[in-house]
Amino acid sequence: MSTTAPHGFRAAGVAAGLKSTGALDVAVVVNDGPRFDSASVFTANRCKANPVLWSQEVVKDGTVRAVFLNSGGANCYTGPEGFQTTHAVAEAVAGHVGCGAVDVVVCSTGLIGLTNPRDQVLAGATAACEALATDGGQQAAEAIMTTDSLSKTVVVEGAGWSIGGMAKGAGMLAPQLATMLVVLTTDAVVPAADLDAALRAATRVSFDRLDSDGCMSTNDTVTVLASGASGITPSLDDFTAALTQACTDLAMQLLRDAEGAEHDIAVTVLGAASEDDAVEVGRSIARSNLFKAAVFGRDPNWGRVLASVGTTAAAFDPADLDVAMNGVWVCRGSAPSADPAGVDLTGREVTVTVDLKSGAERATVWTNDLTHAYVHENSAYSS
Amino acid sequence: MSTTAPHGFRAAGVAAGLKSTGALDVAVVVNDGPRFDSASVFTANRCKANPVLWSQEVVKDGTVRAVFLNSGGANCYTGPEGFQTTHAVAEAVAGHVGCGAVDVVVCSTGLIGLTNPRDQVLAGATAACEALATDGGQQAAEAIMTTDSLSKTVVVEGAGWSIGGMAKGAGMLAPQLATMLVVLTTDAVVPAADLDAALRAATRVSFDRLDSDGCMSTNDTVTVLASGASGITPSLDDFTAALTQACTDLAMQLLRDAEGAEHDIAVTVLGAASEDDAVEVGRSIARSNLFKAAVFGRDPNWGRVLASVGTTAAAFDPADLDVAMNGVWVCRGSAPSADPAGVDLTGREVTVTVDLKSGAERATVWTNDLTHAYVHENSAYSS
Repeated sequence: MSTTAPHGFRAAGVAAGLKSTGALDVAVVVNDGPRFDSASVFTANRCKANPVLWSQEVVKDGTVRAVFLNSGGANCYTGPEGFQTTHAVAEAVAGHVGCGAVDVVVCSTGLIGLTNPRDQVLAGATAACEALATDGGQQAAEAIMTTDSLSKTVVVEGAGWSIGGMAKGAGMLAPQLATMLVVLTTDAVVPAADLDAALRAATRVSFDRLDSDGCMSTNDTVTVLASGASGITPSLDDFTAALTQACTDLAMQLLRDAEGAEHDIAVTVLGAASEDDAVEVGRSIARSNLFKAAVFGRDPNWGRVLASVGTTAAAFDPADLDVAMNGVWVCRGSAPSADPAGVDLTGREVTVTVDLKSGAERATVWTNDLTHAYVHENSAYSS
Repeated sequence: MSTTAPHGFRAAGVAAGLKSTGALDVAVVVNDGPRFDSASVFTANRCKANPVLWSQEVVKDGTVRAVFLNSGGANCYTGPEGFQTTHAVAEAVAGHVGCGAVDVVVCSTGLIGLTNPRDQVLAGATAACEALATDGGQQAAEAIMTTDSLSKTVVVEGAGWSIGGMAKGAGMLAPQLATMLVVLTTDAVVPAADLDAALRAATRVSFDRLDSDGCMSTNDTVTVLASGASGITPSLDDFTAALTQACTDLAMQLLRDAEGAEHDIAVTVLGAASEDDAVEVGRSIARSNLFKAAVFGRDPNWGRVLASVGTTAAAFDPADLDVAMNGVWVCRGSAPSADPAGVDLTGREVTVTVDLKSGAERATVWTNDLTHAYVHENSAYSS
């Protein structure tokens, strides 16, 4: 049910010809109210795509009526022509919905530097708006896929209200302060300021902790829309917990579908002086090509873990670090401990635990292994 | 001729059984004077191997008589036992040379967390010291190879003096303030303080600009030894220029032999507000797996270049960036320009040029592409 699981939403996904395969490539999600609260986070990349430049302005007043999304082209670094296409499609959706263009978020995904044919985009917007339905969430989720092998959706039930969501993303997957394309909906009554606080809390421990390939996208957008159609106002804590559950669920779906990956790796850093230290150390390991290639080869090479830890500014004693892989403490006090031969890396799920012994904070960063298939997919993406 | 090209040096390389293949694995380079000036730089990685912890103390007084090097094990994170092995081998070499152990630099390379058998290491040190010869530089260069496919040596001739050198390194190749294992020798008269200034100037623009795989080693060491045997004192500028030439030559040999690489990529950043900005932007591109996989696939995907630029804090206008690949300006003013189809990426040498249009500074960072062979080599390294 995706984004149309909560009351007060319609969605659609159509094929506008932006993908040469003829697959669904344009989606629209509309909030029918009675409330139109919203919150969004965007990529921290300073090179932002045209839809991000547009949508950053749209969301400032906390009101969003509709989200337009297309795959088949990121509309990034396409010049003034590209920005005009974004503006034109917002106008077109607004005309159908009966709102102003400044209440329409636009998201695009696909190749950077590729100009989306404006006529096709506008025709797609019209077709999607005409197809809007209260059960259109699944088609919308399929229309935003690029190299994704599966559509990603989530529903979390509250007490008389719910959260629905969809996500796309399989590469260029190292969001910071935002991520990929994600639309979340809820029929709970949540004023825009609370929605913003809940969304930032939820993304900070979900999408922001995902680092599949160290590459930050130019188009990452997460938007949450609240219709208030349930008439129920949950506590901010309850709503934040449910939104965090939804975001984490979608983040794990992204992790499992990462391009070419054979392993999902959870890097947990314990004993950190601060949560920031734990995240910095976790991310440094998650970005080590040597470590990631070793996991692909089912090689419990903990030396590469320590070599990554040593590149950070986190508080720790280099002579007193512990490392476990899949629960086997292969390194204690920065010296060999349990035999690495006891670490079985044949399964898809891999855990790495590093104890910095410098405090009580902890964090988990999720990543994937570096595989032949990753190299293959990404060496042939635009050709 | 490697490290024995200048007057006043002997070297040797022997097989001590540390490598299961029976290949050469222990090297010694000795300075016979009359002067014993030296300078060294080490890895910036906070997780340093035992030989680095030892050698950092040895070099502090500017005097080094000999360098012992072994492949077949990095002696990193091997506990107090490992440090004692480093100390013992320094004592052994000192006994043969007739100096104190505190004048013997020790370098090790190979797998992290692997304990080197002390008896084999000591027997190797004795055998190497007994084999020392004024033409032993080539054997020493071969003895320090790990995954290197070729030995790396250099000779630069000055006016009546010369510089010789050897290097090893093919992976975990993203030095900062130091690099890999490199021993340089000269028969010029260069006091230790000048030698230190020259070495830091030379490594800053050579090894420090090499970023093959973004992974910083725990064992990187560069040591230069000056015998003064020529009796000639070059100007510091002349010596620094020659040392920079030697270091750059060795760095390019490392680049060309990087594990699994099919392309050598020179990323040049122009129009930067500062040299630091230029290096930061260059390094961000050099570390983009997506960009590096695209080059492997001969795909001039300049969007991935801009996506990397956007992750930096350098001064630039995201709406006004130019990008060229192999001299073809595929992006001007952050919009598509020349047809990327005109970029021929079939050759080994690839250039990427980014104009930040924010100043007059520039820098070049060298990297390699991300290939199936890189993944293969590094997924099977310790198994």
